[in-house]
Amino acid sequence: MSRFVKKQKQDIGRSPDDLIFHGEIKQDEVLIRIIDFDPNNLKEDVLETLETVKNFKNENTVSWLNIDGLHHTEIMEKIATAFEFDKIVMAEVLNTDARPRIIDYDNYTLITIKMLQHDAESGKIRVENLSLILTKSVLFSFQERRGDVFEPVRQRIRKQKKRIRNGGTDYLTFALLDIVIDNYLYVISLLGDKIEMLEENLLINPDRKVINEINDYKRELNFLRKNVKPAREMIFTLAKLESDLISENTYIHFNELIDNVSQANDASDSYREILSDQLNIYHTTLSSKLNDIMKFLTVFSVIFIPLTFIAGIYGTNFDNVPELHYRYSYFIMWAVMITVAIGMLFYFKRKRWL
Amino acid sequence: MSRFVKKQKQDIGRSPDDLIFHGEIKQDEVLIRIIDFDPNNLKEDVLETLETVKNFKNENTVSWLNIDGLHHTEIMEKIATAFEFDKIVMAEVLNTDARPRIIDYDNYTLITIKMLQHDAESGKIRVENLSLILTKSVLFSFQERRGDVFEPVRQRIRKQKKRIRNGGTDYLTFALLDIVIDNYLYVISLLGDKIEMLEENLLINPDRKVINEINDYKRELNFLRKNVKPAREMIFTLAKLESDLISENTYIHFNELIDNVSQANDASDSYREILSDQLNIYHTTLSSKLNDIMKFLTVFSVIFIPLTFIAGIYGTNFDNVPELHYRYSYFIMWAVMITVAIGMLFYFKRKRWL
Amino acid sequence: MSRFVKKQKQDIGRSPDDLIFHGEIKQDEVLIRIIDFDPNNLKEDVLETLETVKNFKNENTVSWLNIDGLHHTEIMEKIATAFEFDKIVMAEVLNTDARPRIIDYDNYTLITIKMLQHDAESGKIRVENLSLILTKSVLFSFQERRGDVFEPVRQRIRKQKKRIRNGGTDYLTFALLDIVIDNYLYVISLLGDKIEMLEENLLINPDRKVINEINDYKRELNFLRKNVKPAREMIFTLAKLESDLISENTYIHFNELIDNVSQANDASDSYREILSDQLNIYHTTLSSKLNDIMKFLTVFSVIFIPLTFIAGIYGTNFDNVPELHYRYSYFIMWAVMITVAIGMLFYFKRKRWL
Amino acid sequence: MSRFVKKQKQDIGRSPDDLIFHGEIKQDEVLIRIIDFDPNNLKEDVLETLETVKNFKNENTVSWLNIDGLHHTEIMEKIATAFEFDKIVMAEVLNTDARPRIIDYDNYTLITIKMLQHDAESGKIRVENLSLILTKSVLFSFQERRGDVFEPVRQRIRKQKKRIRNGGTDYLTFALLDIVIDNYLYVISLLGDKIEMLEENLLINPDRKVINEINDYKRELNFLRKNVKPAREMIFTLAKLESDLISENTYIHFNELIDNVSQANDASDSYREILSDQLNIYHTTLSSKLNDIMKFLTVFSVIFIPLTFIAGIYGTNFDNVPELHYRYSYFIMWAVMITVAIGMLFYFKRKRWL
Amino acid sequence: MSRFVKKQKQDIGRSPDDLIFHGEIKQDEVLIRIIDFDPNNLKEDVLETLETVKNFKNENTVSWLNIDGLHHTEIMEKIATAFEFDKIVMAEVLNTDARPRIIDYDNYTLITIKMLQHDAESGKIRVENLSLILTKSVLFSFQERRGDVFEPVRQRIRKQKKRIRNGGTDYLTFALLDIVIDNYLYVISLLGDKIEMLEENLLINPDRKVINEINDYKRELNFLRKNVKPAREMIFTLAKLESDLISENTYIHFNELIDNVSQANDASDSYREILSDQLNIYHTTLSSKLNDIMKFLTVFSVIFIPLTFIAGIYGTNFDNVPELHYRYSYFIMWAVMITVAIGMLFYFKRKRWL
Repeated sequence: MSRFVKKQKQDIGRSPDDLIFHGEIKQDEVLIRIIDFDPNNLKEDVLETLETVKNFKNENTVSWLNIDGLHHTEIMEKIATAFEFDKIVMAEVLNTDARPRIIDYDNYTLITIKMLQHDAESGKIRVENLSLILTKSVLFSFQERRGDVFEPVRQRIRKQKKRIRNGGTDYLTFALLDIVIDNYLYVISLLGDKIEMLEENLLINPDRKVINEINDYKRELNFLRKNVKPAREMIFTLAKLESDLISENTYIHFNELIDNVSQANDASDSYREILSDQLNIYHTTLSSKLNDIMKFLTVFSVIFIPLTFIAGIYGTNFDNVPELHYRYSYFIMWAVMITVAIGMLFYFKRKRWL
Repeated sequence: MSRFVKKQKQDIGRSPDDLIFHGEIKQDEVLIRIIDFDPNNLKEDVLETLETVKNFKNENTVSWLNIDGLHHTEIMEKIATAFEFDKIVMAEVLNTDARPRIIDYDNYTLITIKMLQHDAESGKIRVENLSLILTKSVLFSFQERRGDVFEPVRQRIRKQKKRIRNGGTDYLTFALLDIVIDNYLYVISLLGDKIEMLEENLLINPDRKVINEINDYKRELNFLRKNVKPAREMIFTLAKLESDLISENTYIHFNELIDNVSQANDASDSYREILSDQLNIYHTTLSSKLNDIMKFLTVFSVIFIPLTFIAGIYGTNFDNVPELHYRYSYFIMWAVMITVAIGMLFYFKRKRWL
Repeated sequence: MSRFVKKQKQDIGRSPDDLIFHGEIKQDEVLIRIIDFDPNNLKEDVLETLETVKNFKNENTVSWLNIDGLHHTEIMEKIATAFEFDKIVMAEVLNTDARPRIIDYDNYTLITIKMLQHDAESGKIRVENLSLILTKSVLFSFQERRGDVFEPVRQRIRKQKKRIRNGGTDYLTFALLDIVIDNYLYVISLLGDKIEMLEENLLINPDRKVINEINDYKRELNFLRKNVKPAREMIFTLAKLESDLISENTYIHFNELIDNVSQANDASDSYREILSDQLNIYHTTLSSKLNDIMKFLTVFSVIFIPLTFIAGIYGTNFDNVPELHYRYSYFIMWAVMITVAIGMLFYFKRKRWL
Repeated sequence: MSRFVKKQKQDIGRSPDDLIFHGEIKQDEVLIRIIDFDPNNLKEDVLETLETVKNFKNENTVSWLNIDGLHHTEIMEKIATAFEFDKIVMAEVLNTDARPRIIDYDNYTLITIKMLQHDAESGKIRVENLSLILTKSVLFSFQERRGDVFEPVRQRIRKQKKRIRNGGTDYLTFALLDIVIDNYLYVISLLGDKIEMLEENLLINPDRKVINEINDYKRELNFLRKNVKPAREMIFTLAKLESDLISENTYIHFNELIDNVSQANDASDSYREILSDQLNIYHTTLSSKLNDIMKFLTVFSVIFIPLTFIAGIYGTNFDNVPELHYRYSYFIMWAVMITVAIGMLFYFKRKRWL
Repeated sequence: MSRFVKKQKQDIGRSPDDLIFHGEIKQDEVLIRIIDFDPNNLKEDVLETLETVKNFKNENTVSWLNIDGLHHTEIMEKIATAFEFDKIVMAEVLNTDARPRIIDYDNYTLITIKMLQHDAESGKIRVENLSLILTKSVLFSFQERRGDVFEPVRQRIRKQKKRIRNGGTDYLTFALLDIVIDNYLYVISLLGDKIEMLEENLLINPDRKVINEINDYKRELNFLRKNVKPAREMIFTLAKLESDLISENTYIHFNELIDNVSQANDASDSYREILSDQLNIYHTTLSSKLNDIMKFLTVFSVIFIPLTFIAGIYGTNFDNVPELHYRYSYFIMWAVMITVAIGMLFYFKRKRWL
């Protein structure tokens, strides 16, 4: 399946509010976790049913509803009904192949972004779609698979860190996006480490494996850049969004996100140039090594060519070859040959061909 | 005929309202289909004559007039007269080689875009011009050849999907453009599949066919990009158009189109880079393979050079070559030769030349 | 003489209103043609003297004054006096090497653009400067050489095409610029045809002539792009110009010009990429062909090397070479040689070196 | 550790106001220096404790508080409390890996930028984070290591230079940033010197060391550019900042900074192109040198090939080879050989192969 | 010394109003020339002392003060005092390495730009800093060395050209900048001539000298572009400057400057592409020539290989080689050899290897 763009033929022409899950099911059952807090109180729970969701709509506390697993479309429908969301928004949440985007309604805002995580086992970068729906008092976050990426934020809420407990859903949104973008930086820095380590290897022992590695990294970087660039655009849009849901103070944090995602972008650009330099170094090293071999071998055979010719001359069977009958001819031939060989070696040396 | 830009000498200097069909006739007779609906009623028909078209101008129902086949210019003239369209607009509909554009009048808006479709038979991408004229109550769509691309929209109208039956001609416009752009994504993802599959082939068996394939894909991608880029510009213009014909809600959908067409654009950029990387890998693999061969052959012949020289020495006919007369000279010569050969092999091995 | 920028030392420091013709004289005498029309009347004439020019300044009819040949600077002066044009404007008309530009005064606007035409004889692209001075009732057009490029517009005026006879000087301006830009598209499409035809040739028979052709096309395309790009900028400026001389309706046509000149620009970009791809294909084909030859020849000579060595061995003159005296030695030698040769062929075949 | 982006796994998900020092400790103890001045008075001191810091908050004098060493986070906390700074600001000061940024509050502004200095010993470019907090009457500057970079500014203050003693904290900010950017220019000009000197070396003696040098410079330049580019963005933002803390006159100076940092950017772009040109020259020189050798050797061996063949002919043992028995055959053979050799030399010379 | 950016260590941290001359002294004594004119009167003088400068401050006449030579910093100080200029402005005039910039004060404006001139003797491009200070009634121009670049403007003033004598200091500023930019175009067109002439040489005789020439031109072009680009930015800023010192009419002229400097920019871009194409042609021609040689030589030696082998076979000393004893064996061998050689030649010819 194509990794850079996915579109099924049967998806063409669907209504934008068709609630159909396009991705692959990445976990068995859907997990719905809720954290409900104000500066003084905190309630954590796992919801079995969505009937009670409506209660969190009151504006006094901040509620964070985290849904892991997207394949039960009826959940989407229930949320849409309870919170009066346009069904388009829910359809977007399910459309995990779409580009990071922001859809801004009067009372709620949808934010989607790709999460990149380094999978320690396979060494590959794992991509996952994250959707956030921001309302005045509830923040919904939808993930495809259960994960502990946002655990640090949960910890900060539990430990009653003043800022997050006093902030609204907008600050919580920032906190989640901040983790996503920090993960971009982390993934790039991991890849960067490998790329910079490659450099030494490259100069010492440039074998075929190195080139495959370079090409692998290039592909990973391409994949990274393909996800970071639209995320950057999205964050720019977010930071310029004029929305009642976002308080003045939170915009400062969104600007911080811009800086971080720009840093991710710049770093991936830098590594791209480095990789292309490394390819050049590889080719230079390789071809200069081959040149050395060919030069040596050519010089070597060139030296023997006149010697073999001389031997050929005295292998002829002419009746009258005067040199053949002198007593020391054979030894003189040897002397001449050695002189010629040494002379040529000397000449090649002086011409810096050896 | 040039595939990237078409201009006939005889077309230079025509009046912009000359109704002349520039393309090739792609089907025999013109087919005019109409769907007329409001949230409760639906009427579908094939029109034989255009006399009744005027009736759809009433503002209570939404009418979609789909004209397949553009070579009967009198149809254009009749529509222009009935709906009081500027003849320029009709001329633009016929000018199927033009760039995607928007012409915005007070009561109607022309939107043209290229449709890309994958032709399963030839494996090629087929391009076709689509023109939409958006009025308050009627949407005209003009295609060069009869097709079932918009069938899903017809189905949605028939199945009384609430959103499309309640929407106006502007929402219908979005629905059609959405299909066009989904097809972009689909065509790119098909091409992307092939490109990504090529990769493996490339490392195992880099023969000449691969390079032709890469060049084919490159050309297809070039062609794609050439159509997607101006479409993207057009959609951007559309989403910023201040028109009474487009309701506030529909702009959200137009922004979705922007995201999708940007995704198409990004993906085609990514695949372009991948293809150019593949070309590099191909060349590297090929030249490294050739280098291996040349190195082997050169080393092989270099080993024989001194041996042949030795044999040459003892083929000389000097009267006095002492070595010739010892009993075991011949065997000693063999021994020396084998020693030299093994020594050289050993040397080359140590130098990593073999 | 440099083709991409021209500047004579003696022109440095001239006053911007110096009326000096910089170009080469491209025709002997200056020809002044006038068409004067309103929706109902039409008058065509060739002017011998400019004394009557002033009469066309009345606002009731549209007059188009076409001057072919620029080297009689007194004509410029007379026009400037009659219509109270700033002398800078006339100096600009004479400065045929300048960049396409717009100078907007209260009562008149100067528009200059490069005309590109395909010269059927030489197969080269011919460039010529066109200057238009737009006033309320008179449009001046200045060309370096007599030509029939604008004949279609004259025809349209004569045939009483409603639009052009009802339009003002602004619509006439559009009509002329439209022809200029259609010519861009035509010239590019001609070049594009040649470039696309080259492709086939390239794969079958990549000889040296092809590379010269590619380089020729590249240079032509460079030259084209160098003229199209500033024209595009100029048209953009024109379409955003806030001028009383241009009616609301004409702006729609200027937007059409933007689309067309953008299409010209895009197409020239596409062909540029195609040419650079073709260069790559050429080099790949050529080097892969050379590789095949070298590989064949090397393998061929490598096969003979051990055979020659064996022959050398039995050409030695040792007293005691047992093999020499067996009856069938010679034939055994042949058998060994053939075995070695076949063995090597087989080995090379299996290694895919042949 | 990756040089272009750094992100520790444990830093992901931290609260943006966590005061944790991310860098490496670059000096043992923290040094706090203060200069307090107005046009007439000057007081310089090293602070042991931060208790007195609050006193500088009065608006009559300008105070510059320079903190070298960032690892004592309690200092940050004390400053934040005394001046009522948001803790985010202090966290940013400690986050030495972040991108240059500006955070603008009502009463204070944070400015961070990378300082680049040439380390004379290692010949490497040393990067260090500089943070400035600008308030009405106090300017804080935070550095990672003790340095004398800002000594010239201190001297200017001490020598009672009118402009700096009359300026506020905003002018002082300019003075410090000016030094930072002058250092960019200095570092680039040092690197530029080396690059331009390389050029000559390149044409005379293109050995392997040169290529390593080029690659080193390329990497340094990459690193430079990676720091200069975001600094330029930051300065642009600064010059457009609408802040009460910055007086009208100081904006003129900020525009000067823009020019300087743009010059740094342009120069690094220029050197980048020069380096890539040098790489090309290197490869051209090298391959043309190799070509010369290979051509010479090939021609050399080709000359001997027919000679050795002739000798071979007369080494055959046929019973009836008439030439063998003529008296001067041997000498004629020599004559023929010499003729052939000279003929070939002549031919190759005329074909310009030698 | 680095040619693309200059920064002395000792200049880091200077106050921006330090009057220190950074450049090299390019002439011995400072020359101060004045032209004072109104439409009717003209006075030209060489000033020995600056005491009288103040008199020109009256607003009735236009005065142009041209200072050649910058190393007497006291002159700057006197002017600053007399005209109440900020010392920063004078410091900028002395800072001849800075980027072209505009500093706009209420009553005066500083404009700096690089002048490029072709030095006929060395064939190199000479760069010099030009600073203009524009006040209501006096225009100061500062040059590093005495020159006659502005002589045409002086001539125009003397000859009482209406436009320049009626214009103010703003028109005079345009006249000087126009000369500077015309010189850009002239320098580029000179370089362009050489580059286009190179083309022919390239195809006929591609020797090593050509590549050095290409690299020289590339470096010159790089240097040009490095100066033209910021000049273009500066002119753009100038044309958008809202200043009381510049009359409405003069803006039209500034737009002309934009066109000219853009033309210079475009042309230098075009030549850059041409040069890089030429490099490609050079490499292609060279490598195709080498390929021809290698192919010929390889084919030549391959033909002799089987012949030498055959000779070797009959040089063996086996007792029983039947062929040796037939009467015409030797001649048959020759026949076989000639047949083999002709056969191979034929084969190679048919395969298009020769």
